[in-house]
Amino acid sequence: MKAWLSRLQNDLDFVPSSPKELAAYELSHALPDIPCRIETDPAMDEGYRISHSPDGTYLITGGTTGVLYGAYALICRVLCGESLPDEFRSSPQYALRMINCWDNADGSVERGYSGRSLFFEGGHLQYDPFRMRELGRLLASVGLNVLCINNVNVHFPAQLLLEDYLGEAAALADLLRPFGVRLMFSVDFSQPMRHGIPTADPLDPAVQAWWKETAARVWKAIPDLAGFLVKADSEGRPGPFTYGRNHADGANMLAEAVRPFGGSIIWRCFVYNCRQDWRDTKTDRPKAAWEHYAFLDGQFADNVILQVKHGPFDFQVREPLSPLLLGMKKTHMAMELQLAQEYTGHQIDIYTMIPMWRELFEELPESNIMSLAAVSNLGRDENYTGHPLAAVNLFTYGLLAWDPQTDAKEAVTRWARLTYAFSPADESSLVSLLLSSRRTYEKYTAPLGIGWMITPHDHYGPNPSGYEYDLWGTYHKANRDAVGIDRTAAGTGYLLQYPDSLQQKYGDPVTCPDLYILFFHRLPYTFRMKDGRTLIQRIYDDHFDGFSETQAMAETIRSLPFPEEDRKVILDRMDRQLCNAKEWCDIINTFFFRLSGFRDEHGRTIYD
Amino acid sequence: MKAWLSRLQNDLDFVPSSPKELAAYELSHALPDIPCRIETDPAMDEGYRISHSPDGTYLITGGTTGVLYGAYALICRVLCGESLPDEFRSSPQYALRMINCWDNADGSVERGYSGRSLFFEGGHLQYDPFRMRELGRLLASVGLNVLCINNVNVHFPAQLLLEDYLGEAAALADLLRPFGVRLMFSVDFSQPMRHGIPTADPLDPAVQAWWKETAARVWKAIPDLAGFLVKADSEGRPGPFTYGRNHADGANMLAEAVRPFGGSIIWRCFVYNCRQDWRDTKTDRPKAAWEHYAFLDGQFADNVILQVKHGPFDFQVREPLSPLLLGMKKTHMAMELQLAQEYTGHQIDIYTMIPMWRELFEELPESNIMSLAAVSNLGRDENYTGHPLAAVNLFTYGLLAWDPQTDAKEAVTRWARLTYAFSPADESSLVSLLLSSRRTYEKYTAPLGIGWMITPHDHYGPNPSGYEYDLWGTYHKANRDAVGIDRTAAGTGYLLQYPDSLQQKYGDPVTCPDLYILFFHRLPYTFRMKDGRTLIQRIYDDHFDGFSETQAMAETIRSLPFPEEDRKVILDRMDRQLCNAKEWCDIINTFFFRLSGFRDEHGRTIYD
Repeated sequence: MKAWLSRLQNDLDFVPSSPKELAAYELSHALPDIPCRIETDPAMDEGYRISHSPDGTYLITGGTTGVLYGAYALICRVLCGESLPDEFRSSPQYALRMINCWDNADGSVERGYSGRSLFFEGGHLQYDPFRMRELGRLLASVGLNVLCINNVNVHFPAQLLLEDYLGEAAALADLLRPFGVRLMFSVDFSQPMRHGIPTADPLDPAVQAWWKETAARVWKAIPDLAGFLVKADSEGRPGPFTYGRNHADGANMLAEAVRPFGGSIIWRCFVYNCRQDWRDTKTDRPKAAWEHYAFLDGQFADNVILQVKHGPFDFQVREPLSPLLLGMKKTHMAMELQLAQEYTGHQIDIYTMIPMWRELFEELPESNIMSLAAVSNLGRDENYTGHPLAAVNLFTYGLLAWDPQTDAKEAVTRWARLTYAFSPADESSLVSLLLSSRRTYEKYTAPLGIGWMITPHDHYGPNPSGYEYDLWGTYHKANRDAVGIDRTAAGTGYLLQYPDSLQQKYGDPVTCPDLYILFFHRLPYTFRMKDGRTLIQRIYDDHFDGFSETQAMAETIRSLPFPEEDRKVILDRMDRQLCNAKEWCDIINTFFFRLSGFRDEHGRTIYD
Repeated sequence: MKAWLSRLQNDLDFVPSSPKELAAYELSHALPDIPCRIETDPAMDEGYRISHSPDGTYLITGGTTGVLYGAYALICRVLCGESLPDEFRSSPQYALRMINCWDNADGSVERGYSGRSLFFEGGHLQYDPFRMRELGRLLASVGLNVLCINNVNVHFPAQLLLEDYLGEAAALADLLRPFGVRLMFSVDFSQPMRHGIPTADPLDPAVQAWWKETAARVWKAIPDLAGFLVKADSEGRPGPFTYGRNHADGANMLAEAVRPFGGSIIWRCFVYNCRQDWRDTKTDRPKAAWEHYAFLDGQFADNVILQVKHGPFDFQVREPLSPLLLGMKKTHMAMELQLAQEYTGHQIDIYTMIPMWRELFEELPESNIMSLAAVSNLGRDENYTGHPLAAVNLFTYGLLAWDPQTDAKEAVTRWARLTYAFSPADESSLVSLLLSSRRTYEKYTAPLGIGWMITPHDHYGPNPSGYEYDLWGTYHKANRDAVGIDRTAAGTGYLLQYPDSLQQKYGDPVTCPDLYILFFHRLPYTFRMKDGRTLIQRIYDDHFDGFSETQAMAETIRSLPFPEEDRKVILDRMDRQLCNAKEWCDIINTFFFRLSGFRDEHGRTIYD
């Protein structure tokens, strides 16, 4: 398999002109002993059908890119030793299955933990074509089809993607096209002002004309560009609010400009007051997205997609589903996930995300959204994801974006088998470890949905009061008696943004799932959880458990026969995770002990 | 007066060749109507005598530099409208009256709040000769005589002061010499290793030889260089510990090298464990200096001076005197103060230091130390000190280093009069404001000697638990019942490093001065202070008072007729101080309210 994997990379003579040609190449090298045929049926678009003839031949029929997805599906199943039915059909649930890179033109990556940018260096678009080919394959092999290469915070000179860098960007699009991967650009809402127009007001004719001309020029260079991604009026970015316009005004103006070319506007809904006074108890940050967007439902053009983070805060270990994803039925919506482990261990701590994503889809009707996006965890490190095991998140994200019903264990097992080909026992150990890693991380960090006890700015390691008096609207207000924010009708009212069923589920601390309880409720340390434990004892227990589970995880990791290049990195990071888990466990327990005065019922050490 | 002040600056033809010539120049321009004569008596060294003849002539007699100090003393008194006795004699208490600049070769200033370095830019020694002349006068006019121009943390390429930059440094020494100001360099203990020597072991003959040769070369270029300043084995700096040697070994080796040239080694005693585990209650950072140095008393060469920060921590608003300054009777000692307002308001908040310095000298026999040093608050800002009122600290430091009995009010009044020449009422308002500013800052920041509730790294603004779980050994361990560290014999034992009288003064919370009480004791919030208030109520009262005093200060500041260039800066910073004081007041009160549950007895607002 390794020979196959490196072949495409090294085969300089092979420049695929189409997904079909690429599919044939991949099949012939990955499965040299299995006869395959490929037929294109453009009507099938991204879908495919794999039929197994009695003579042993596989026939893959699919749309232009569907044949490539079919080929990778077949290769995956054969290499995993899975049997296929005689006829297997598949097509993706979501049309846009996106990766958002937060790469800056200077080569840095915002919240990147895998080295520098794959696309930029020193203020220039600059990439290794061989790595681009490998990247295209990484994405295509799991069905991902849109790659936004620059940060949503568009720092100069990333604006030049629409200008001086457009030619090179078009060359990159050419490289990725055979993989079915289309580029997307993050754009700066105020970009017309770089060109002598004194405003970026979306209702200004000069602004509208500039964007139309720009779109025409950009799509001429890259006819299959997927669209523009926009972060407006958020954390200091420019946007329509400056001109007294709303976000439908802003998004629709851009949508009009890109419509003739089939482009989409992906409009991020991450708008909140990031200069909140900690004394202000009326403002509750999780309410912000709903307040800014819900009333605009039905007013967005049909080629606008609102991209909403999965939870109402910002990629914490546990948040309930954003109510906006449930409430805007007349608007095209995308859910945004984050593969980059910003708050979840920096790709030092092991944190496999698919169990969390599965929980989200339990609340979210699949058809409520039309697309999925994920912030990239990729970078220039040799292994692309910094921690070799973090690659499972890219892989399983692709499978889930194709089919949100993807089973978590099946997906992780497939990744483990293709990556390491361990013995069944070792594979089972690794899969269990990965599947439980998110709960373990959750246990040793901020308790029970409260979030934000992490070191500010850096977002790694504990700082239980680090955000408490800051401007970010992320408070727990722990005192000697109680902790948490009441977000019910009696409190900030955030809960009222949900449909009735979820209001009922979360509204009463007696019925609210324990793991969400401090997100929705302010509770005394003596509150009895569903299993009879007090809240404070539950906090202590989770933290001690989280650390001991990490110790067990380290034992397992040391026992597994990783290849040497991975082993070195994995063991080093495991040591750092152990230190991190110990700090979290002890600091959170001490923090709550100092406040509450309750000792651990089991007499374990909590430092004064 | 303004004309006189700018004259030296602009008089390009006048290049003083000696302090005497400079003294004559200054007298003739500052006091053109007063006949003066100057006579040199080398035996008087830095001292001077001013005699007033019946014919109205002043005769200044003094040593080589003494005549200049005499001239400035006369100018100061005349311009202040003070009368002089017929004969007035003065000589400095301390031989070395030093300014330590923490300037880096790249032009930045560590903990600098007055712009970039006056001496360095872009990795080069680079200065404006006219500003150097003004600087020399600033220092000489208040009797300061040693200027260490580079950071004690010697970051590359500052090492080149002993090498490539030596010629330019010698030219700088020439500029400053007529002002009686001698240069000093911070040196890197591992510098021999930049020259092919594989070690910096102080007992290694090659190392010793390198320093001897280097000293010979350096003093040849600058024959009156005051010495080398060394930060060794501290916060990551190299030092003798690497080689299993003690600090007497290290300092004496350097002392031997500089002895033939009359140089001194100023050896900083800022050694502590800066990687402390917060769980470790055995280690108490204030004990560190004593533990590292006291046993070496008597072992240092006579041209070594141990430079000890005034308190056992690090320039907090209130610390008791470092016990090391009382305990090493057989060693030459310097006390280090900090004009740079690192923890005391960044030259945004008004903070006049001389009241604090006077308190230190109440505990410290003058003769226990032979020198004073102060970290500079100077930078390239037009006004040198960022905040115009911060200049009072440089001025009064000079007076105090000359005569530690200097009266605080008299010194501040003199500065105010020379600087602004206000009406008596306005002058009195300004002087009162300056003299009370330290207590005001103290009231709204960390309470009662506890320190370290400041934002980590940046050291401006409140973060009550910012250091609590960090590596710096600076913990308050506040919990729901009590706050503070017991440093008595029953606790960490730090108090035992003091002479009996101070052990008695501080040892019992009933006798310990309230303002030091949380430095030495861990106390319940219900503890009764000397005036009957509880500890928690005292904390609340101080914070509300500190903020309202700041509001009153702002009123006063707005009413004063500062010249326009100062007024703009002062008002802007006053607004920032008001915000800072409000944040401190509310956050500290909320922090303790959440912990203790006690409400303010007077019903003022403390946020939940």
